Amino acid sequence: MSASDDNDPVIGVVVVTHGGAGRCLLEAAGTIVGPLEAADAVSVAMEDSFEEVIRQVEQACTDVDHGAGVVILVDIHGSSPFQACMAMLDGTRAMEIVCGVNLPMLIKLAGKTRSSDLLAVAQEMREHGRNAIWVASDFLRAEKTGA
Amino acid sequence: MSASDDNDPVIGVVVVTHGGAGRCLLEAAGTIVGPLEAADAVSVAMEDSFEEVIRQVEQACTDVDHGAGVVILVDIHGSSPFQACMAMLDGTRAMEIVCGVNLPMLIKLAGKTRSSDLLAVAQEMREHGRNAIWVASDFLRAEKTGA
Repeated sequence: MSASDDNDPVIGVVVVTHGGAGRCLLEAAGTIVGPLEAADAVSVAMEDSFEEVIRQVEQACTDVDHGAGVVILVDIHGSSPFQACMAMLDGTRAMEIVCGVNLPMLIKLAGKTRSSDLLAVAQEMREHGRNAIWVASDFLRAEKTGA
Repeated sequence: MSASDDNDPVIGVVVVTHGGAGRCLLEAAGTIVGPLEAADAVSVAMEDSFEEVIRQVEQACTDVDHGAGVVILVDIHGSSPFQACMAMLDGTRAMEIVCGVNLPMLIKLAGKTRSSDLLAVAQEMREHGRNAIWVASDFLRAEKTGA
């Protein structure tokens, strides 16, 4: 089976962020490339207990998992929301976690959710997310010098 | 003068995104490391004309510029909001644009806004934003193998 096949079940996507950024990112991706097939966001508030965050992340993973596993995109490493995501790596379901979510990652992911290789999808998100970060004036200087 | 000095004027920060993600990212950074000194967000709606987006970005840049220039963090390259940001590179003020904004970038930026070197700050945001993106299971495998 190829790494991307329409017959593959859809990978679930959960975006976990401090505050409402995750929901906004999903909405922005939706307006640009159409809504992701099986996606949800978890907005973590400062006053949420760790147990409550785990409960919310677990519920979101269950809601979007159609048998192909789940990719969690979380805003920042080392935080309490990140630790709650890591608690999902308990073998219950196929699961990958990508830290440092940005919009280019989600846009790219929208076309990649039919896949049988969850780790490859997560690694592609990592590379695409990184490559989408650059300084505009570096690019302009390169254009001028033909580099 | 060093690249980071409390006597330097504060660099302005404008986060430009499709929808409300920019405002949420600034709020999230504020709850984690405290509010950025001179920062604003521009939320671009699908129905906004290009002229209206330029007007909003220009207004935000003027509001946050205290003489040290402005770093614009925009969600994605090639979009209409990105083009509006690029229109700010007209020599009116010192300006750098970083594409692919994520939360780690903003967290890092919170401690770097007193600087006389705008380009160095933008390039540091680029590196930090990229390095903050990784796949958790890659990290766990590296831990297991001692890599």
